[in-house]
Amino acid sequence: MPNKYDIKNLGGAKHKSALPAASFVKDDRRILVDPSLPRKGKGAPASLEQAGPRAKLFFEAAASRIGIVSCGGLCPGINDVIRGIVMVAWHRYGVRDILGFRYGYQGLIGAKAAIPTPLTPQIVENIHKAGGTMLGTSRGEQDPKSQVDYLVEKKIDMLFAIGGDGTQRGVMDISREIKKRKLPIAIIGIPKTIDNDILYTERSFGFETAVAAAQAAIGGAHREARAVRNGVGLVKLMGRESGFVAVQASLASSDVNLVLIPEVKFSVERLLAWLEERLRRKAHAVIVVAEGAGQDLVPAASTDASGNKKPGDIGLYLKQAILARSTIGYRLSTVKYIDPSYIIRSQPANADDSAYCFQLAENATHAAMTGRTAMVVTLLNGHFVHVPSELVAKGRRKVDPRGPLWQSVLNNTGQPDL
Amino acid sequence: MPNKYDIKNLGGAKHKSALPAASFVKDDRRILVDPSLPRKGKGAPASLEQAGPRAKLFFEAAASRIGIVSCGGLCPGINDVIRGIVMVAWHRYGVRDILGFRYGYQGLIGAKAAIPTPLTPQIVENIHKAGGTMLGTSRGEQDPKSQVDYLVEKKIDMLFAIGGDGTQRGVMDISREIKKRKLPIAIIGIPKTIDNDILYTERSFGFETAVAAAQAAIGGAHREARAVRNGVGLVKLMGRESGFVAVQASLASSDVNLVLIPEVKFSVERLLAWLEERLRRKAHAVIVVAEGAGQDLVPAASTDASGNKKPGDIGLYLKQAILARSTIGYRLSTVKYIDPSYIIRSQPANADDSAYCFQLAENATHAAMTGRTAMVVTLLNGHFVHVPSELVAKGRRKVDPRGPLWQSVLNNTGQPDL
Amino acid sequence: MPNKYDIKNLGGAKHKSALPAASFVKDDRRILVDPSLPRKGKGAPASLEQAGPRAKLFFEAAASRIGIVSCGGLCPGINDVIRGIVMVAWHRYGVRDILGFRYGYQGLIGAKAAIPTPLTPQIVENIHKAGGTMLGTSRGEQDPKSQVDYLVEKKIDMLFAIGGDGTQRGVMDISREIKKRKLPIAIIGIPKTIDNDILYTERSFGFETAVAAAQAAIGGAHREARAVRNGVGLVKLMGRESGFVAVQASLASSDVNLVLIPEVKFSVERLLAWLEERLRRKAHAVIVVAEGAGQDLVPAASTDASGNKKPGDIGLYLKQAILARSTIGYRLSTVKYIDPSYIIRSQPANADDSAYCFQLAENATHAAMTGRTAMVVTLLNGHFVHVPSELVAKGRRKVDPRGPLWQSVLNNTGQPDL
Amino acid sequence: MPNKYDIKNLGGAKHKSALPAASFVKDDRRILVDPSLPRKGKGAPASLEQAGPRAKLFFEAAASRIGIVSCGGLCPGINDVIRGIVMVAWHRYGVRDILGFRYGYQGLIGAKAAIPTPLTPQIVENIHKAGGTMLGTSRGEQDPKSQVDYLVEKKIDMLFAIGGDGTQRGVMDISREIKKRKLPIAIIGIPKTIDNDILYTERSFGFETAVAAAQAAIGGAHREARAVRNGVGLVKLMGRESGFVAVQASLASSDVNLVLIPEVKFSVERLLAWLEERLRRKAHAVIVVAEGAGQDLVPAASTDASGNKKPGDIGLYLKQAILARSTIGYRLSTVKYIDPSYIIRSQPANADDSAYCFQLAENATHAAMTGRTAMVVTLLNGHFVHVPSELVAKGRRKVDPRGPLWQSVLNNTGQPDL
Repeated sequence: MPNKYDIKNLGGAKHKSALPAASFVKDDRRILVDPSLPRKGKGAPASLEQAGPRAKLFFEAAASRIGIVSCGGLCPGINDVIRGIVMVAWHRYGVRDILGFRYGYQGLIGAKAAIPTPLTPQIVENIHKAGGTMLGTSRGEQDPKSQVDYLVEKKIDMLFAIGGDGTQRGVMDISREIKKRKLPIAIIGIPKTIDNDILYTERSFGFETAVAAAQAAIGGAHREARAVRNGVGLVKLMGRESGFVAVQASLASSDVNLVLIPEVKFSVERLLAWLEERLRRKAHAVIVVAEGAGQDLVPAASTDASGNKKPGDIGLYLKQAILARSTIGYRLSTVKYIDPSYIIRSQPANADDSAYCFQLAENATHAAMTGRTAMVVTLLNGHFVHVPSELVAKGRRKVDPRGPLWQSVLNNTGQPDL
Repeated sequence: MPNKYDIKNLGGAKHKSALPAASFVKDDRRILVDPSLPRKGKGAPASLEQAGPRAKLFFEAAASRIGIVSCGGLCPGINDVIRGIVMVAWHRYGVRDILGFRYGYQGLIGAKAAIPTPLTPQIVENIHKAGGTMLGTSRGEQDPKSQVDYLVEKKIDMLFAIGGDGTQRGVMDISREIKKRKLPIAIIGIPKTIDNDILYTERSFGFETAVAAAQAAIGGAHREARAVRNGVGLVKLMGRESGFVAVQASLASSDVNLVLIPEVKFSVERLLAWLEERLRRKAHAVIVVAEGAGQDLVPAASTDASGNKKPGDIGLYLKQAILARSTIGYRLSTVKYIDPSYIIRSQPANADDSAYCFQLAENATHAAMTGRTAMVVTLLNGHFVHVPSELVAKGRRKVDPRGPLWQSVLNNTGQPDL
Repeated sequence: MPNKYDIKNLGGAKHKSALPAASFVKDDRRILVDPSLPRKGKGAPASLEQAGPRAKLFFEAAASRIGIVSCGGLCPGINDVIRGIVMVAWHRYGVRDILGFRYGYQGLIGAKAAIPTPLTPQIVENIHKAGGTMLGTSRGEQDPKSQVDYLVEKKIDMLFAIGGDGTQRGVMDISREIKKRKLPIAIIGIPKTIDNDILYTERSFGFETAVAAAQAAIGGAHREARAVRNGVGLVKLMGRESGFVAVQASLASSDVNLVLIPEVKFSVERLLAWLEERLRRKAHAVIVVAEGAGQDLVPAASTDASGNKKPGDIGLYLKQAILARSTIGYRLSTVKYIDPSYIIRSQPANADDSAYCFQLAENATHAAMTGRTAMVVTLLNGHFVHVPSELVAKGRRKVDPRGPLWQSVLNNTGQPDL
Repeated sequence: MPNKYDIKNLGGAKHKSALPAASFVKDDRRILVDPSLPRKGKGAPASLEQAGPRAKLFFEAAASRIGIVSCGGLCPGINDVIRGIVMVAWHRYGVRDILGFRYGYQGLIGAKAAIPTPLTPQIVENIHKAGGTMLGTSRGEQDPKSQVDYLVEKKIDMLFAIGGDGTQRGVMDISREIKKRKLPIAIIGIPKTIDNDILYTERSFGFETAVAAAQAAIGGAHREARAVRNGVGLVKLMGRESGFVAVQASLASSDVNLVLIPEVKFSVERLLAWLEERLRRKAHAVIVVAEGAGQDLVPAASTDASGNKKPGDIGLYLKQAILARSTIGYRLSTVKYIDPSYIIRSQPANADDSAYCFQLAENATHAAMTGRTAMVVTLLNGHFVHVPSELVAKGRRKVDPRGPLWQSVLNNTGQPDL
């Protein structure tokens, strides 16, 4: 097993867990990254440590203090994760001291921080029923030294950081600074990305909710497109480098005629020719485009406060390109362009995401109590696992244009290769 | 009773209705326009003819042919109205010949028309469960002579036109041409406007559904605004000349801090000053703006294909005006701008609108069978009534800035006079 | 104007209102009960006092204390009403002392009461987003003397009672006791009945939400019925003495083949004969029955803790009667019986109901501040009005079997007279 | 690899697939049943054949005829599966002859069958937007000989059977008869069970939709329970032998205080003692019970037409047991008992289930075209696989009382061991 799959730990584990013994997971339980039947002659298959409660803990629950912070853009389920950590830490481990840092990593910089919010079961009881994040959020990384200073000042033992790429890079930076100072502070990431592009995970929390909201927007585009002669509905969805939201929402709606994702290049000329033909035959068309698709066609991108490249606006580009064709088929009636991002992001988690967020929070809490650090919790092949932050930061999960998921899209939309 | 409230009729009514006698409404039943207790010394109060089935019909149901057309932008409930007309005409009156004209008034111009769709109970059975319009629609008026030529060619006895201002002007134009030719063709309008600004009606169909969808978008804006320090959520809603959608959706959500409507002028300077103060106190704000608000602030408007003035984009203007203030309060984080129009328009009718659409369709069918023409059906003070098309075209219902509805907004948002 | 339409008042009004003068409604503004054009020779038409803010108040807002209590079964919107009263009283009038009594009228009996909850804008901010009632509720009336003792002990100036028939009878009993003791305590009712059977009101709050939830249940019954050969879907809905929920939900769904309501008698034999014929032709049927329908067919009723007669179980009776016919048509497959009451009652208010509840609360607060008492606020012909509690207690609104609403049902379902 | 995991095949595959070569899956691709890292010294791990399009087909698409049948109780997504098979067979393989058999296996018995419905893309275009099954369904197995007679009569080459245990037993019976007669007819199962208890699959279609609808019902029970002093909400959910719906819906809602499932025994005495204690502390409680829980407590079970044991009514039993305690804590107010089964079953598939159903249908079609038979398609560790019908019929997936899922329930509800 390669070293890169190993989990960092703050040290020994000397406290006994209060949880039922039957539930304990042994440290040598591992889950294969690839569940395909191994071919002969290959080396030991890559695997990840299985998550779950352990018999021995690093922290003494009753004496420890937990911090929680949420960063980056909104995503359905953040409040569910916050609630889950508070509930499991409080009721199952007996932690009585939990602080919520406000407005993302800014809340870990003494000079900028709003006063942290004490979190109790009563305070978080119903937060999962609303979208957004009760702690607030912000974009952008902050100086790790100042953040560790503040964690020390606030006597934090375990920090949970809910956020995307930038946030998980922050987890690594902070944990490096912690290690340098030899502090007994564990820091656990709960990876958040509505794009569902995290490595070593089946799905990211909020993704299913986002797909459902995206499906609803596609439904609107479909009805608008069909309502007029030669109407075109165009929906821009999340997906800067991976098209999972566009793909899954299109499969879910079955009303989409063309899906454009970052992983599959296309030519505008061929798109317009296809559209002309489509309108001639069917008198309407629905196109779904991930925000990161066709970036070779649109002006150079800027960078957001989190350091993420912001894609050029492919949605508007396509709308204008389609309208610029004075005649398509008989006569193009209209392009109804919908960008539902904020409505999608701010949804409360649906049932399946709520249950999932609770389990992520649960396993993150289990991991933190044992002194594991610089890692995230994910779901892999039906099991929750620990993934080193470094490993998860190495890349992104993508839609494989030769894999079965993209074939499903082709089978569903009937779209040609453009 | 002033003449202007009188209903045009094609002539005598010689056929007996098949409906139960107990249900017949007499022609002298009238509903007061204003249900306030009349002050002494005023003349006869304005009233409108009550809708409902009549004992005697102008058309012989079994021998007559009905046409239906839907025009203008989408609105929840169009399919419900189509379905209702078909069901009542077929099952209650015994009409067996119903044609759906395609793509709005274009469908009434022989040279442009797609082939009309025959409509039967089986075909329309489930159309009300989807948004949009099964007949398609288009904007723009068409030459009345050509339309009447086509109605004659297609042997239409009764035409139902579902649409907004332009459509109802079309109803008048077509009925004038019909009258000139002394043709026995009745034409009945079912007024459609998501803005809820029809005179002599409590509410227009689809309005409640639109408000519910608008409320959901406001909820997203609220969660986005609260999620960051000094976040602003800005939602643009329908309402070119009347702010009912903005008003009702804001009352429904109770998360809005400022509502801007066409009927109430505001100064951008005072708005920005209010916002600065608001962010200082509360660190977030939610603003709802009707598309027709603040038209003195934005560039001259264009005209859409229906001949309606298109308002300048007050939403983008406000977004930029707010962002242009480099510092508001501490520091403005972000403006999350949501324009949910297409998602709202394309919703299927909610329960209350579905029931309402059925009743509108029912009463429109009753009216047409008696030979009434150049009129619309509306709901007034709890009763369905007949309104001459001319009368309904005379203006728009508006939010009265001194009336109780706007006071409710002020009480709900606490917003100042800007 | 008959005396019975007059409103009781605690006495003079000496304090100036803080609300904008433009919004004040004069005391002589009245709304006609019947908006039909009055026939000649009839006396003065009945009218009700228009609600709204008044220039002069009885109570000094800053020095007064408000109490709120919710009673009876759940209904969508109770939290909206509570929130509205708190917001308007606090922000617009300047009241700073508001108590929520717990668990209905039990909360007004010193010996039984749980500690009342202080209510502030912060506490009620989001309560309208959940169904139920944050104050809790109970059934049953309580001794008026003990209640007035407790109101005096708690120094309440204005009491708002949200509840149904029993609750409004309680309002009268308490106000009589208050009058006897010559106390300056105003008591205002906000009538709550999911059945929509309140006199002098267009609709009761929560009704539209209930209809939407009922429509969803009917949709389920319809899909179950169609899924099998000769399937029957049977849905029991609210409506002890008035069938409005059953009627409106059936119109909204347009999937119902037979609606049974308390106002229209039916014979089981004829029902079963109709069903046999229906299954032969269509192989499925959907029946909606209001809980109070067919009470001549089911065993004598009991009485609930509120003193309301509980109807016998007509739903189960019909299910068994249908199953007892060994063969209907070919062969009856199954009766899928759905009783969705608790799911309906506990919904959060939909958009339209939320806006409406706010306005009810607003007008109730306006009325209380002027010292009006023993009255309820309702919506009548598009205007909010004051109705004496005595008047509203005189009966129930019913579906008129000869009126247009029931004709709409017949037109929608095609059902025969049974 | 043990023989039991092998797939039956009708024989050679001589036709070339029209699908893109890049998408073909080789026959030796297999997915491990257990993705845990194998311990040393164990034998070859169990694996299943990966699903997907193959290069060579058994049937000549353009000349073949497909049949589809749906059996058993409703479940969200049946229409999605039907639609998916039609779309993929028609558009991707070029099949032009597809028949839908009506009302389950009854539709395969010549003497009983309603006329089969021809299925085309146009007919199935929108069926996935409604719940239920457009083909109808029935319970109960039928004589395999008569069914094969009818398949031969109707010239069916491939039959798709959507259904639960009984249906999949039927698949085996029919395929055995087919084998005996040496007929080239493939029969593929798409396993349907809202209980999510199929072996060798991560989830069954419709499960996530069911969980969401169950969560909504629990929300109602929670609001009802909290609305009164010492209120109890009791919800009975699906789950005859496996408690997945109850478990997942409880995790999703986080409002549940006690979950009872078939896999975990409980004592009523201890339940009532726990409830008394709970009401004393919290004044309300929410209990979720799977229909198959506590079957040692309720009268002997009957059998439904599908041959499935019908569990005794544990919901009513618990309601009565709780009410029978005259005093619990202070005083039990009420038990609000909700059985939302029909409402849950008849939902349309949510977004995630719709996408999943399409992929199940797709892979079932791929499998059938190759001549595979007597197998089902499932999702296992993120990959679609082929499972022999015999294997899947060997048992049920259960909630492991010592596994992480049940621990999550305990962590979520805080419930004790009863």
